[in-house]
Amino acid sequence: MSSSDRAQNLGDLAATASTATAAARRTSLVYSGADRGLPIAPSAGRLRPLGLGEVQITGGFWADLQALNSSAMIEHCEAWVEQMGWTTNFDAVVAGTIAQTRRGREFSDSDVYKLMEAMAWEIGRTGDEAMNARFEALVARIAPVQEADGYLSTKFGRPGQQPRYSDLEWGHELYCYGHLIQAGVARGRTAGADQFVEIAVRAADHVCEAFGPDGIDNVCGHPEIEVALVELYRYTGDRRYLDQAQLFVDRRGHGRLGQIEFGAQYFQDDQPVRETAIMTGHSVRALYLAAGAADLAIEEGDDELLAAITAQTLATLARRTYLTGGMGAHHEGESFGADYELPSDRAYSETCAGVASVMLNQRLLLASGEAAHADAVERTLYNVVATSPAQDGKAFYYTNTLHQRVPGTVPDATEPSARASSSLRAPWFEVSCCPTNVARTVASLGSYLASADDAGTQLHQYASAEVVAPLGDGRTVGVSVATHYPHDGLVRVTITQVPEADQDAEWTLSLRVPAWAERAVLRTGGVSTSVDAGYAQVRRAFAVGDVVELELPVVARWTWPDARVDAVRGQVAVERGPLVLCLESTDLGASVNTVSVDTSLPPVELDGAVLVSATTVDPHDTPWPFGPDADAVAPERVTDRGLVQLVPYHAWANRGPSTMRVWMPVS
Amino acid sequence: MSSSDRAQNLGDLAATASTATAAARRTSLVYSGADRGLPIAPSAGRLRPLGLGEVQITGGFWADLQALNSSAMIEHCEAWVEQMGWTTNFDAVVAGTIAQTRRGREFSDSDVYKLMEAMAWEIGRTGDEAMNARFEALVARIAPVQEADGYLSTKFGRPGQQPRYSDLEWGHELYCYGHLIQAGVARGRTAGADQFVEIAVRAADHVCEAFGPDGIDNVCGHPEIEVALVELYRYTGDRRYLDQAQLFVDRRGHGRLGQIEFGAQYFQDDQPVRETAIMTGHSVRALYLAAGAADLAIEEGDDELLAAITAQTLATLARRTYLTGGMGAHHEGESFGADYELPSDRAYSETCAGVASVMLNQRLLLASGEAAHADAVERTLYNVVATSPAQDGKAFYYTNTLHQRVPGTVPDATEPSARASSSLRAPWFEVSCCPTNVARTVASLGSYLASADDAGTQLHQYASAEVVAPLGDGRTVGVSVATHYPHDGLVRVTITQVPEADQDAEWTLSLRVPAWAERAVLRTGGVSTSVDAGYAQVRRAFAVGDVVELELPVVARWTWPDARVDAVRGQVAVERGPLVLCLESTDLGASVNTVSVDTSLPPVELDGAVLVSATTVDPHDTPWPFGPDADAVAPERVTDRGLVQLVPYHAWANRGPSTMRVWMPVS
Repeated sequence: MSSSDRAQNLGDLAATASTATAAARRTSLVYSGADRGLPIAPSAGRLRPLGLGEVQITGGFWADLQALNSSAMIEHCEAWVEQMGWTTNFDAVVAGTIAQTRRGREFSDSDVYKLMEAMAWEIGRTGDEAMNARFEALVARIAPVQEADGYLSTKFGRPGQQPRYSDLEWGHELYCYGHLIQAGVARGRTAGADQFVEIAVRAADHVCEAFGPDGIDNVCGHPEIEVALVELYRYTGDRRYLDQAQLFVDRRGHGRLGQIEFGAQYFQDDQPVRETAIMTGHSVRALYLAAGAADLAIEEGDDELLAAITAQTLATLARRTYLTGGMGAHHEGESFGADYELPSDRAYSETCAGVASVMLNQRLLLASGEAAHADAVERTLYNVVATSPAQDGKAFYYTNTLHQRVPGTVPDATEPSARASSSLRAPWFEVSCCPTNVARTVASLGSYLASADDAGTQLHQYASAEVVAPLGDGRTVGVSVATHYPHDGLVRVTITQVPEADQDAEWTLSLRVPAWAERAVLRTGGVSTSVDAGYAQVRRAFAVGDVVELELPVVARWTWPDARVDAVRGQVAVERGPLVLCLESTDLGASVNTVSVDTSLPPVELDGAVLVSATTVDPHDTPWPFGPDADAVAPERVTDRGLVQLVPYHAWANRGPSTMRVWMPVS
Repeated sequence: MSSSDRAQNLGDLAATASTATAAARRTSLVYSGADRGLPIAPSAGRLRPLGLGEVQITGGFWADLQALNSSAMIEHCEAWVEQMGWTTNFDAVVAGTIAQTRRGREFSDSDVYKLMEAMAWEIGRTGDEAMNARFEALVARIAPVQEADGYLSTKFGRPGQQPRYSDLEWGHELYCYGHLIQAGVARGRTAGADQFVEIAVRAADHVCEAFGPDGIDNVCGHPEIEVALVELYRYTGDRRYLDQAQLFVDRRGHGRLGQIEFGAQYFQDDQPVRETAIMTGHSVRALYLAAGAADLAIEEGDDELLAAITAQTLATLARRTYLTGGMGAHHEGESFGADYELPSDRAYSETCAGVASVMLNQRLLLASGEAAHADAVERTLYNVVATSPAQDGKAFYYTNTLHQRVPGTVPDATEPSARASSSLRAPWFEVSCCPTNVARTVASLGSYLASADDAGTQLHQYASAEVVAPLGDGRTVGVSVATHYPHDGLVRVTITQVPEADQDAEWTLSLRVPAWAERAVLRTGGVSTSVDAGYAQVRRAFAVGDVVELELPVVARWTWPDARVDAVRGQVAVERGPLVLCLESTDLGASVNTVSVDTSLPPVELDGAVLVSATTVDPHDTPWPFGPDADAVAPERVTDRGLVQLVPYHAWANRGPSTMRVWMPVS
């Protein structure tokens, strides 16, 4: 397809998208005035976020995933939290039978709340009245469980249960509140203050009372309340929540929590987050904590804390992150490994850690305007978050390995799986934090695409979309994005709105050029310019209908590892645009464990497929796999040599049990 | 040192050794008649074991370790089980306070019993009267805890405690009995039947009652009772114990145990051991089970079961064992990984799995006479079991990583460590199965050296030693072994006894030639013969004073991995004789994480040290460790190039915190 063909194609796409957007807007419940559907609303920082009322994804990869979320994923999660008893626990509290009948782990309430956060964004995004009714039905079941002082838990505090806050290490009460409060803010910012928002506020008030300066001098074993309290402060303006977040951040890291076998590092109680040079311990805990601390730093103008969080994030990206953006190398303790310890075949790379990394990097992007954070968001969204759900939206990866050595077994469709037991996506898990985390992220994806500042608007992630960006001083600009990205590198931006009062004023359109994009080209006003990684900026007095095109070099490329990543020495990966590709036995016709690829030529692109030259061997088994001869330990008979197709990593394992590898040995 | 110098040297060694042996024998309590100090006494099989009364290690590596066990390790363990409350738990039962005051994990009784097994062998081996008094003091504290029906536990069954057998998955009651029974047999075979033996027999009788054909139709979450019951059958001749072992082996693998998050595979309840092609799940559990099943098969003449255990053992050695002989790749679940999934930097390789592999392979060696099992015993003893204790015998490795990326921290000398938290040996652990397991193995090492059959005697492991071997029919032969092995490859065997009644009868002296030994030479009667791996045999009518010498090529050699071991692709190790060597930052003067070695020349041996040509680099840090250029991801500045000393893996980390690697990247 030529560049002009593609441009025509994109024009058609944009026309379709506008219609879809208009339809969506007609049914939208909210987004007037101050309610802009903002997932995060920092009061300071280099860039200002745009909300779900300001960015609508209208087509392509992310629109498809949002459609899947609408049509399948959210309902799937609703059905499972009910089937697992995690919602009926609330009913059992009301019935007085909870001590005898409670089901699920300590933190099961949180998955109901994460689901509700997903529903809140989705209802705001689509105006789905039926989903809104289901949301309100859940609220009606939760409301009577909240005690007079705001305490709300199905696990603790009732007759026959352990007392409140008797197990801060593992009880997860504050963690559950964190998700309740995030869901409450989501509801408030999409549907306005209602009973559910009130529940969340009362819970937060209770936390401030119970854990305030005169309360329990401790923290929760799982960070999450911090990021939620700062956002509630932003939503309500009540400084008490910000002060409480500050208390939690300051208290953690001094060994207040009890000793556990994993050690205090597991829940980041071994050193203050302010003094942490690189992330350690449980990856989701570390990332949620960092996100909360970043928010706190932004609100308090604590540049030292913000610099510490930024430095630890960049260090973690540089030395403890998988090619996919996945974080957390160890199954044991679900934790970060040492620097460059990134084993493919036991990559934990929890989906929730991917979600948390996206949360953290988006906050740092808005604070700093640095493209590295947008790069991390993109890499992680495409290769971790999007990898989790199956094509039908009814099964999920909890962990995201980069090398599957043995074909998995099909998980039980009716029973929950162990979280990391299967190589195939499972419908649900005993610990099922990931599906609802994916759902809430996908429902709020729009906010990751663009931002604004006084000078203009910035596009960070590329999808066909309609963007309306307030620049401040009442000036608003708008752009329409048409693209087939990530399948294709052409991004066409059409100006749809310029400042009404001052149409001749200059403003800046910034387009992110990912770090992987060598020789990207910007075209506008008949001029083509080569642009470097970072942000390509066009500043002028735009007219409605003006077009700016960014051409990113989306072509399959070899990617090599740092020599210190021992686990993939002598191996190579293939990436195409932001997508990590992988080799699946389904395409190879053999196990991927005995394959090697020829890197003397670039990967081949043919009819939309990416192919590499591969050799498979049938190694002779030996009684001992180590010996004196470098070549003869496993004598090899070549069984095949030829081109084999790679598939996007996010799409693997959708065709039945298989073996798979991202990193491929070099011939 | 020339061969003749070494021969002279060995002659001196043998003279010293004889004196030491005589002294040891004078103080020995037992070993008359049927009491031969046999750790295992199979009634069938290709070879017959020799006991601690028949093989005395008189000098060298293993004698030094036995001396350390005598002088430090055992007393260290005694002090810690007391300090941890694991012995005082027994007192608390008697005092009626156990439900309120019990300390330690469910299985803490077992470490008292493992310690007592170590003491029993040690008392038998050395005649240590003081240790014997301490042993009897322990017996006096345990005896009153045994209930009228033989039940014996500090954890379950008393008022205020969980009921007996209410948690078979994790309660470890039968596991504890297993160790009690093994200790009882050790006592019986070294000191004769006494009160402690009686306690063990009563516990076994109780097990047969409680879990017999009409009893609880289930098994213990941790195999161990099986191997103990078969040995008790061998010791007592009472078939009931053998039948009970058969029941346990037959019951396991059918999902009788409850569901746990790790899955039924964790405790080998997913498939019968008879149908298991390769080991999976928790490595110590799998190996103890296989050892018990092998014993059962031998006693029952169940060739099918024995073949299954042999096949799964060989498969596990071929595809799921570290170069060190270590087993169990995963920290999570302490389990075996997939085939060829052997990450160096997260090698779990639990010390107890090493002990269990030695137990299993020794049983298969006696059953089959196959040298592969003796090779496995040797590799594992030198590189796993001997690696665990510190030079002073007062700290131990629980896990045995092959790549230490970050210098460890010195563990607390007074508090127990988490089992896998530190890179330095720790004095004790919350779960402290390994130190006592090492102690009992070292105390009974003699029995691993040699065996007998009708035709002669076989030497499997090489140390300076005195061996007396009954061939059957009242004929007995004796040999004296003098060697500096593994430092040196010369093993000199002098005949010390020939059959009294028929001094001119031929008999066979068999000497194991390890698989790594290329171009080994056997010298006898002035004739040198090149011998292959396996057993070199000399058959003739030996005269007392005859000498047979085996010259093994103990010289540093490169060892390469099978191409399927992704984790060490492009890396090489160095072995010398049975020892795996490693590179420690202490010698390198830099982190081992950025080193590479030149393999164009063999490793250099100089003044007893092994050196390799190494290059260290100072890589530039990059914001993202993956990129388009194979050579430029981490630009390197060479900081040093030269020869660096390697050390035996078992000796690493005795000089303070360091980084270490067994597998070294090739330049």
